[in-house]
Amino acid sequence: MNQKLTEGEPITLSGFIHNIRVQKTIIFIALRNTLGLFQLVILKENVQAFEKANALTLESIIEISGKVKLSQSKNHQLEIEVELLTVISQPTERLPIQVHEKAANETEIDTRLNYRWIDLRKPENLLIYKIWTLIEQEFRNFLIEKSFIQIHSPKLMGNPSESGAEVFEVKYFNSKAYLAQSPQFYKQMAIAAGFEKVFEIGPVFRAENSNSTRHATEYTSFDIEMAYINSFQDVADLEELIIIHIFEKLIKTYGDEIEKLYGITLTIPKAGFPKIALHELRKSIKEMSREEGDVTHADEKLIGEYVQKEFGHEFVFLTHFHHANRAFYHKKNEKEQIYSESADLLFKGLEITTLAQREHRYEILKSQVEERGMYSESLQEYLNFFKYSCPPHGGFGFGIERFIMKILGLENVREVFFLFRGPGRLTP
Amino acid sequence: MNQKLTEGEPITLSGFIHNIRVQKTIIFIALRNTLGLFQLVILKENVQAFEKANALTLESIIEISGKVKLSQSKNHQLEIEVELLTVISQPTERLPIQVHEKAANETEIDTRLNYRWIDLRKPENLLIYKIWTLIEQEFRNFLIEKSFIQIHSPKLMGNPSESGAEVFEVKYFNSKAYLAQSPQFYKQMAIAAGFEKVFEIGPVFRAENSNSTRHATEYTSFDIEMAYINSFQDVADLEELIIIHIFEKLIKTYGDEIEKLYGITLTIPKAGFPKIALHELRKSIKEMSREEGDVTHADEKLIGEYVQKEFGHEFVFLTHFHHANRAFYHKKNEKEQIYSESADLLFKGLEITTLAQREHRYEILKSQVEERGMYSESLQEYLNFFKYSCPPHGGFGFGIERFIMKILGLENVREVFFLFRGPGRLTP
Repeated sequence: MNQKLTEGEPITLSGFIHNIRVQKTIIFIALRNTLGLFQLVILKENVQAFEKANALTLESIIEISGKVKLSQSKNHQLEIEVELLTVISQPTERLPIQVHEKAANETEIDTRLNYRWIDLRKPENLLIYKIWTLIEQEFRNFLIEKSFIQIHSPKLMGNPSESGAEVFEVKYFNSKAYLAQSPQFYKQMAIAAGFEKVFEIGPVFRAENSNSTRHATEYTSFDIEMAYINSFQDVADLEELIIIHIFEKLIKTYGDEIEKLYGITLTIPKAGFPKIALHELRKSIKEMSREEGDVTHADEKLIGEYVQKEFGHEFVFLTHFHHANRAFYHKKNEKEQIYSESADLLFKGLEITTLAQREHRYEILKSQVEERGMYSESLQEYLNFFKYSCPPHGGFGFGIERFIMKILGLENVREVFFLFRGPGRLTP
Repeated sequence: MNQKLTEGEPITLSGFIHNIRVQKTIIFIALRNTLGLFQLVILKENVQAFEKANALTLESIIEISGKVKLSQSKNHQLEIEVELLTVISQPTERLPIQVHEKAANETEIDTRLNYRWIDLRKPENLLIYKIWTLIEQEFRNFLIEKSFIQIHSPKLMGNPSESGAEVFEVKYFNSKAYLAQSPQFYKQMAIAAGFEKVFEIGPVFRAENSNSTRHATEYTSFDIEMAYINSFQDVADLEELIIIHIFEKLIKTYGDEIEKLYGITLTIPKAGFPKIALHELRKSIKEMSREEGDVTHADEKLIGEYVQKEFGHEFVFLTHFHHANRAFYHKKNEKEQIYSESADLLFKGLEITTLAQREHRYEILKSQVEERGMYSESLQEYLNFFKYSCPPHGGFGFGIERFIMKILGLENVREVFFLFRGPGRLTP
């Protein structure tokens, strides 16, 4: 914004009082809005404005008009000499948490989340949602450019999706419903309906009683599903292209701000993300757990460090999971049936995606259900999607909160949610 | 697609057998995929392909390669002489409902919804989601261009939002949660957090035991909220611009297909949507119900017809609702406190939006809660959002399903949902 302005130019702005410093003949205000921070200067000569400003408390909202001063201060984008000042809104009570102070960041996360609407006023928090808006839009642009069709699948289901474990139950008139744990069954339904390439971005619900720094009971899932693939590698290749595209756009638009507010310099990930079989990793990383066809959270961290060291890469696709450790609807490798046609994508040692080719052949899918002893009437409803032809297909689910958490180097995914939901938190 | 192809050009395609006509020496197949319908010609000389095609049933999925024939048939986009034919998937059972026949459209809606994944294969149904994808993307593009920030607010709430009536209850570990009826409180929270302009597109849940042709228990709401407005008119003006923008893009991309599949010629709505006070309408339309400050569904229809006749317009903003008939958080008109600073937008006689300026002043908002006897601890949590400064603001919620229903001239909103949810329907 400030590039275009010239000395003495008239300007009108609204925003919050981020900080205020009252001296005998001059008042300095740091005004905060979505454009950033502005340094306002109010001289004693301007009696009316000076008196109003003198009575202002932090986090009041004002509108000012004044003139641009190009002598920029160190901390603020632009200096403005105020001529008129109007108070728009003021706190009716003492602020329960601070916005502008260093101490604001040392307040315990639970207290900050109790007053999330104040916590979100911090510029570094607002930036999270600017970034998210951009990432989501670029994810969509990329897919729509490739003729993907969007679906909004229902979150209310007559039967628990997938396993039935960790699902929330809803009182539904005189009956019961369940909250969707993922749009998995429905995006596959879209494929059976001939939609060919679909995506959905929306909430999913997990009744996991976990208080870890990476879990939530409700989060946003970016889901895609595509038909006529040859293997899960096609899905991995698409995801890699999407991620590179997102990084390019992100750096261009917000690279500087991320550097300024988070001290992190983003770089575009190199094309050709490493793809490594789990059993190969186990040979190289002795500390990994010994369950050959699956990984623990501790393993993920070790793998992240190893891949950074060996390949200089923050991303890695893990392959050759055992089918027994994956969802029943994953396709088995035709030659080595022990393996699932799937992969996990790790970013800085954290799983952000599971992707797979699905089993699209009715009889084989049904046998995969049966061999796990999972068969039920409600799963038959899912199986019916594949009875009347279905093309081969695969897809992924991508956790945006974890992705942003890792981009910004945050320690707790709760920092990324607009409003976090966990076993002990349903408010505000 | 066909414009670019030349006679004899090799082509490979996959899709569903929409129709098949077997003659002695030639087989015609209508192949259907997301690009449209293609006429395949298989000659008896091509023994292998002819035999395979002869055994095919409707809705099988095949991949073919062949050569383009530019002699286009009347019903299909492009004719292709098939050289190779591979069967990818076949129905394992007789189809419960038809895709290609005229009769398919006469099947009762409930039966069609039971087999929605087959019903969705119809080209006119696929078009709904192509349109929806475009409308949603253009809605977003328009807002993001104007620096709106996206939020994903939680659907799980510790307290019932708004009134508490018609809300679904969720078993939440050892406690209870409620499904959000709208993101209203949370988008206002974003405004109190200084986000200035926000939007959200996501599911909302209404426990309404209604079987009307325009209600659902879960639908997608397009929500916006913007700060520093002068009146609800600013919100109405923005919505009008968005709708015109969407129509422009929609007609450009899908105008021809909508005309072909739905027999409807769309035109861009004239700028300056009529804005009419309810009491003025009551003078002109004698048949309207007599409750002065509110409208019934029957009134909406009458108003739609009247506005079409008098103004040649499909859209109208209704103003001067009585505050008592609107949500408690609507701002009252400063001069005539009986009125709410709000409007409804009707499209072809159906309400698709309620918009309003909100009351952002803590004490006044609290008194509006109290004067309705609605005060509770959980509403206090909402009131707290306004305690520590909040700019003036307003916004709207826009029902995409009703909008598309009216665009395509459909009689029942259930036709528009990817998967409809109502009191009696939770599957598939």
